[in-house]
Amino acid sequence: MNKIRVGITGYGNLGKGVEYALVNADDMELMGIFSRRSPEQIKPRTNVPVYSMEQAAEMADKIDVMIICGGSANDLPVQTVELAKHFNLVDSFDTHAKIPEHFDAVDKASRESGKIGIISAGWDPGMFSLNRLYSQAILPNGSDYTFWGKGVSQGHSDAIRRIDGVLDAKQYTIPVDAALNSVRSGEQPKLSTREKHTRECFVVAAEGADLDYIENQIKTMPNYFADYDTTVHFINMDEFKANHCGIPHGGVVFRTGTTGENQKHKHIIEYKLTLDSNPEFTAGVLVACARAAYRLNKEGMCGCKTLFDIPPSYLHQLSAEELRKNLL
Amino acid sequence: MNKIRVGITGYGNLGKGVEYALVNADDMELMGIFSRRSPEQIKPRTNVPVYSMEQAAEMADKIDVMIICGGSANDLPVQTVELAKHFNLVDSFDTHAKIPEHFDAVDKASRESGKIGIISAGWDPGMFSLNRLYSQAILPNGSDYTFWGKGVSQGHSDAIRRIDGVLDAKQYTIPVDAALNSVRSGEQPKLSTREKHTRECFVVAAEGADLDYIENQIKTMPNYFADYDTTVHFINMDEFKANHCGIPHGGVVFRTGTTGENQKHKHIIEYKLTLDSNPEFTAGVLVACARAAYRLNKEGMCGCKTLFDIPPSYLHQLSAEELRKNLL
Repeated sequence: MNKIRVGITGYGNLGKGVEYALVNADDMELMGIFSRRSPEQIKPRTNVPVYSMEQAAEMADKIDVMIICGGSANDLPVQTVELAKHFNLVDSFDTHAKIPEHFDAVDKASRESGKIGIISAGWDPGMFSLNRLYSQAILPNGSDYTFWGKGVSQGHSDAIRRIDGVLDAKQYTIPVDAALNSVRSGEQPKLSTREKHTRECFVVAAEGADLDYIENQIKTMPNYFADYDTTVHFINMDEFKANHCGIPHGGVVFRTGTTGENQKHKHIIEYKLTLDSNPEFTAGVLVACARAAYRLNKEGMCGCKTLFDIPPSYLHQLSAEELRKNLL
Repeated sequence: MNKIRVGITGYGNLGKGVEYALVNADDMELMGIFSRRSPEQIKPRTNVPVYSMEQAAEMADKIDVMIICGGSANDLPVQTVELAKHFNLVDSFDTHAKIPEHFDAVDKASRESGKIGIISAGWDPGMFSLNRLYSQAILPNGSDYTFWGKGVSQGHSDAIRRIDGVLDAKQYTIPVDAALNSVRSGEQPKLSTREKHTRECFVVAAEGADLDYIENQIKTMPNYFADYDTTVHFINMDEFKANHCGIPHGGVVFRTGTTGENQKHKHIIEYKLTLDSNPEFTAGVLVACARAAYRLNKEGMCGCKTLFDIPPSYLHQLSAEELRKNLL
């Protein structure tokens, strides 16, 4: 069997996650890592060549699918659109409000090149979105709920680190048990922002820093913390490094709805993720989508796609016949 | 907008569930119920005509999709294949071992008629199968677990009712908490049949019946009960009618797997259904699949499909563009 030849663009946490995920994918082969940094600065975990971004286009005939592991704010709107001129590709673009705009730009480039570009693959957007779609289709008369955590929010952690006197910080988003239980009961509660999640912060302060000032700056920060019940713990650097270096995350998507005579029957659909490593799980979704991108393009399709457009069997290594026999 | 014109074949619990589900589907219209019983014996919940099965074929141009609500043991292997000669259709064929055979028969008939036949739609097979597929594709290095319940098993209830001296009975399948907790911890336990589920039976015995005999017959019944820890409660008919007339069900599909350096990170994917009415939830899946069958056929496709083959967006009433904007 010819293996699907994959490239990775960008070598941060997500790129490393994809590199590890490819080790578990028998039908794929990592051909190279592409970086904006100079190649000798990159030390891959596996035995794979490193190239500069400028070399990518000239390797178009050696790579079946490119997995783009840049950030959504600045990298992907440029990189995905540029690379779509040469490659089938997958990205994890996660700025929800800008997805339609990103879709249109990638769709145009991919149609011109005759390639497939799958965007917004991951878990939210991604698997959480898929569950919202399936559950709404099955239970049209109902309510959706999404809870995130317990997990690290990089954006909130960064916001704390920008406060004067903070050396390092990690913020955990935590769903409120009472809210989860209320949703699980099927009673379709209306929940405010504050009722759904709390925020817990672990902060390493510089020696002599004003802790009251830092705590107040965090708790009153608009958009990030002001609408939440927030707890701040000051800890030393040793404790921080020992207990807060992971990137766990997860969450739950619910749909609760009713059916039947006078809508008397309640139903609860719950999809829950508990992830030790947010980027490595996201990488798993990207790799499955890379397989689908390759197969869709082999069948002559092109343009931008999301998980909403992909027949599920295209993501799995087994044939449609084996899947029916073993998993249906 | 032209509504999708739907027919229902078979008017048991599932057929009634589909009838109610169509009330919640703005884009669909119920054209008629088809039954093997004589039409005047059928009293629909809504204002819809009833026809005999023999009239179905001549109404082929008035119905866009037929939803077939017969039983898997005897009805569907005949009805689905026969109706596939005239209609796009959906069934909930659930004899797992015979799915490949049913698929091939429906595929042949549907290709000849140029129609779409979606089989094995429901929650298991159906949504549980889909979750097994997606989760394996994302976490190839891991283990699958399926738990059923708490819910009514019709097959086990029927088996009890066949014992001498039993007037009525209901059997609940219940997942064992210790097994659920062990799977949720990510430790990938090996679980025996007895460790995963218990069986609880509520039995109404005839006056003067030998209760010890009945209880022993149940607990030692091969395949159905002998491999499980089973509890038997004898209750009177009033209590039975008051508390055991519903058809709740549900369950959980897990995949737990590992990623990263030395597979050191654990991930848990959990998909859980809690359903007041098993047939009404199944009906929701059938109706969403009917929408997909209509759309796939409109695009010129034919043959047999399962949820594994259907792009998720085809199941939802909204357009692909609206779905990306609102749900991704």
